[in-house]
Amino acid sequence: MAKTVGVIGGMGPMATLDFYRKIIKNTKADSDQGHIHVLIDSNPKIPDRTAFILGKGESPLDEIVASAVRLQAAGCDLLAMPCNTAHYFYDDIVEHIGIPLINMVEEVAGHVSACYGKAAKIGLLATIGTYEAGVYEKYFKKYDIDIIVPDDTGKREVFSAIYGVKNGAGDVPVDGVCDVVNSLVQNGVDGIVLGCTELPLLVEKFPSGIRYIDATEILALKVIQMSC
Amino acid sequence: MAKTVGVIGGMGPMATLDFYRKIIKNTKADSDQGHIHVLIDSNPKIPDRTAFILGKGESPLDEIVASAVRLQAAGCDLLAMPCNTAHYFYDDIVEHIGIPLINMVEEVAGHVSACYGKAAKIGLLATIGTYEAGVYEKYFKKYDIDIIVPDDTGKREVFSAIYGVKNGAGDVPVDGVCDVVNSLVQNGVDGIVLGCTELPLLVEKFPSGIRYIDATEILALKVIQMSC
Repeated sequence: MAKTVGVIGGMGPMATLDFYRKIIKNTKADSDQGHIHVLIDSNPKIPDRTAFILGKGESPLDEIVASAVRLQAAGCDLLAMPCNTAHYFYDDIVEHIGIPLINMVEEVAGHVSACYGKAAKIGLLATIGTYEAGVYEKYFKKYDIDIIVPDDTGKREVFSAIYGVKNGAGDVPVDGVCDVVNSLVQNGVDGIVLGCTELPLLVEKFPSGIRYIDATEILALKVIQMSC
Repeated sequence: MAKTVGVIGGMGPMATLDFYRKIIKNTKADSDQGHIHVLIDSNPKIPDRTAFILGKGESPLDEIVASAVRLQAAGCDLLAMPCNTAHYFYDDIVEHIGIPLINMVEEVAGHVSACYGKAAKIGLLATIGTYEAGVYEKYFKKYDIDIIVPDDTGKREVFSAIYGVKNGAGDVPVDGVCDVVNSLVQNGVDGIVLGCTELPLLVEKFPSGIRYIDATEILALKVIQMSC
């Protein structure tokens, strides 16, 4: 039977919008009725994830759990969370719910391993929180995938672009991120993970001819697969 | 206190996505936390509205009410329904809920009256269901707004474009709708209501230099105003 998918959203709203769009676009449906039942909780009460990881803000865990519990109570059969940094709290979240929460970062690790083989060398664009907490390293080490991260200046450039989207800044400058991408390519990476859900909103302006691995898209495809 | 807004969605999913985008884009926020708490129920179980109005399908009322009740139970303070044709059921829906449901069509009528004055002459692009049920006439007559609708061939052209979006047809042809728009303009309309939430997804391809009144955008602005 078709399942109802809950989305722990709002981290940020534009990223949730992009995720919902990717679910719709990738669903084979020829009518309104052919789509997936999706319940999206775009919850702005969730505090900033990176701020907490850096010891500069309150924990987002309670509000993430509140969203998860709300979605479960509303009848969702499984959950997805289109925010990479929030996956730092994954193990704590699942303790509070009785339905599966798809692990986006684990899905990306599986995808990378399947597509690029073991011992792949993958660049990671992410928030400072995701870098500092080693969110990707935790799941990628199972597959012996080598993660290449930018230097501190590069990390700040990526972070600045991400928060440009969150800040509603309009035309976000990405020159710094483009430099980071070129530097990762020079480093010999096989592909680059867009490891923050704001990044797909900017990727059209990144250098072309490089294999970008879109975590949001991978999560959307998994949602569609699991919803049937 | 900030309110949680529930969205009775999925009619269709792309239209719900456009509505959510318009809420986000029009919200003055410089962080994830500055946005509105929105809970979206994208419910594909809601049967086709027009089919029912034409006596060719089951009533969507029960499933629309199920979404409304689910959103109320999940903590929403007010509701919005980005589907014009579904407003045929407005009076029946509100009987089942204890929170306000913004009436999009009434909001459009108020907007048109405020912007174009009494006795305005407005073209209407909508589904066959909305035309047949007189959804717009019901609310526009209060303001003495004269609604001009296309002829039967024109109505079918508009309907075909709308269902092109719903069918996920990709590049939906709009030549027929453009003819309808030009014909309405020749008829002397002051503006044209995009009275179906799929139409804003196509409006960029409609003739320019005409004042389009986007019901989805008006609803998004009302949501933002009422959520504070």
